[in-house]
Amino acid sequence: MAPATIPKTQRRVVLANRPAGEPSGQDFRVEDGPVPEPGPGQILVRAIYLSLDPYMRGRMRDVVSYAPVVQIGEVMPGGIVGEVMKSNHPNYAVGDIVEERLGWQEYGVSSGTARKIDPTLAPISTANGILGMPGLTAYFGLLEAGQPKPGDTVVVSAASGAVGQVVGQIAKLAGCRAVGIAGGPKKCAFVKDELGFDACVDYKAGGDLTAALKAACPDSIDVYFDNVGGPVTDAVFANLNFWARVAICGSISQYNTAETEFGPRTPGFFVGRRVTTRGFIVSDFLTRFPFAMARLGGWVRSGKLKYREDIVDGGISKAPEAFIGLLKGDNFGKRQVRVGPEPAGLPKF
Amino acid sequence: MAPATIPKTQRRVVLANRPAGEPSGQDFRVEDGPVPEPGPGQILVRAIYLSLDPYMRGRMRDVVSYAPVVQIGEVMPGGIVGEVMKSNHPNYAVGDIVEERLGWQEYGVSSGTARKIDPTLAPISTANGILGMPGLTAYFGLLEAGQPKPGDTVVVSAASGAVGQVVGQIAKLAGCRAVGIAGGPKKCAFVKDELGFDACVDYKAGGDLTAALKAACPDSIDVYFDNVGGPVTDAVFANLNFWARVAICGSISQYNTAETEFGPRTPGFFVGRRVTTRGFIVSDFLTRFPFAMARLGGWVRSGKLKYREDIVDGGISKAPEAFIGLLKGDNFGKRQVRVGPEPAGLPKF
Repeated sequence: MAPATIPKTQRRVVLANRPAGEPSGQDFRVEDGPVPEPGPGQILVRAIYLSLDPYMRGRMRDVVSYAPVVQIGEVMPGGIVGEVMKSNHPNYAVGDIVEERLGWQEYGVSSGTARKIDPTLAPISTANGILGMPGLTAYFGLLEAGQPKPGDTVVVSAASGAVGQVVGQIAKLAGCRAVGIAGGPKKCAFVKDELGFDACVDYKAGGDLTAALKAACPDSIDVYFDNVGGPVTDAVFANLNFWARVAICGSISQYNTAETEFGPRTPGFFVGRRVTTRGFIVSDFLTRFPFAMARLGGWVRSGKLKYREDIVDGGISKAPEAFIGLLKGDNFGKRQVRVGPEPAGLPKF
Repeated sequence: MAPATIPKTQRRVVLANRPAGEPSGQDFRVEDGPVPEPGPGQILVRAIYLSLDPYMRGRMRDVVSYAPVVQIGEVMPGGIVGEVMKSNHPNYAVGDIVEERLGWQEYGVSSGTARKIDPTLAPISTANGILGMPGLTAYFGLLEAGQPKPGDTVVVSAASGAVGQVVGQIAKLAGCRAVGIAGGPKKCAFVKDELGFDACVDYKAGGDLTAALKAACPDSIDVYFDNVGGPVTDAVFANLNFWARVAICGSISQYNTAETEFGPRTPGFFVGRRVTTRGFIVSDFLTRFPFAMARLGGWVRSGKLKYREDIVDGGISKAPEAFIGLLKGDNFGKRQVRVGPEPAGLPKF
């Protein structure tokens, strides 16, 4: 394949202000920058799909966490699926499809850490989703932190999201009853009818969420995979079974709060029910990624795992708006931005 | 040994009212009742020491938990160390010292479940404390839920209490740095100077408890054994290390609250630090009690485990006042009530 034309400049999105609460468009700046030249051992990658994920809100805070803080003026961090445009590295050829953390920009260089993607397995965008970080998060969070047993009731919040949809389907593969929590009838219908969860509770329906969960989980909840925190999680906790496990993956309800929110203290319940909670990060399981990825890939290929993506068109400059919407839950499936076209000739699915 | 005179009637303490908040003397009633006659396979036990424990507050609530609710007019539940006065059971002889859950009364019958105590090992009152439920709670809670590793910093709240004093000493045996939290300089000095903890933080000293814990735990906190919950626990959480384990044993700060208290939501912290919390009850480890008891007994005999008891004189009618005080933390060591005299001839220690 002849190398495509590579421009001299590119567009990228940097952090302009540090928002106290909900981010707005003014907290980001779309700017022009040079297309970098790959050095020895490096490759130049053109972004095709930018992954947008809730964890990015945490990077915007000036609080040292498990990952570095984004400085004002720095390119927003994020994973992309892209095409190798130049290669000074023996493992990569021009035209290869790779996944790498290049950030919110059209072009970037990688020093041999990019993951090569097999475009014959599934659409390449899945490398940002079910066959990428979100899929691995679901796999390890559910199976390691959640420890599901056949017959367990597994509840996952943000059930139609990138991680949640995979959690419930793996729970089914593990012989569990899978119950989702999602916002609105459309998402709930998808979770139940298309992904095959046993039930889905609409947290936006109004009324008593604790009672709705009780109705959907008559044998109580053995495993809770928490993506949201806050009052939704309170309602789940009230329905936890004896010996329940809670995998704490995320808490999107808290990401935009300027001040720490307060919630009920219920330590006595955690003792009486012998609840175990475990916070985890997908990279804790790094050494086992290839194993899990092969398993996820097999399930996708055989149709045992379905997925839904929510791809926003319009290029990298749409990323701020798409991200702000994601934090509000306006995505329906794994949100990505189409930064540029797929190369011609990729298999169709 | 000739059987002692057994009266026809006895004193006992029943629940008179269900308190909404802090219990008062009027929530209990001291009354007379018959001394029961042991049936076939039963023994009659005379209480010598009544154990008072924070968990009893939970039994007074009309909420189904891991144990039955005490009904109004029923004898308050509790463990005692006592003397076998009559025996219709082949495993027990008159004069045996036993530990059994007879409740707040002077006499009761047991159907073969009483634990026989070796009075040559340690004072018989220890069967309510370090060589009883509190000691086992410390042993299993720390070692199983807490999973301490040599070099870890282990923090325990209510450090001079029945459970806390054992937790810190076992942490030392496990090669850890042991830091207590206790109320007042007298308790803190005891924890540090007599029990051999590395440090003890006085939560009543005023000032910034989070900062005081940071000073006492310069390498952060790897294991927290929580007996108290509430703001003290918040201050510990702020100092948890990556991969910390929290053994949730109790939450005495919450036992007298009429309404659920609110505290800060910090799920993001639990993810970033990969904290595991685990609620447990000592009876979860029932099958391993004999093993743990032998080990605790060996450590007590060899002087590796020290202990302090807080024995209230005046008979069973003093139990309500002694219990109300326990909930306020006015005990100094394992609180018990001396219900009746020890039999003559027990070894002295």
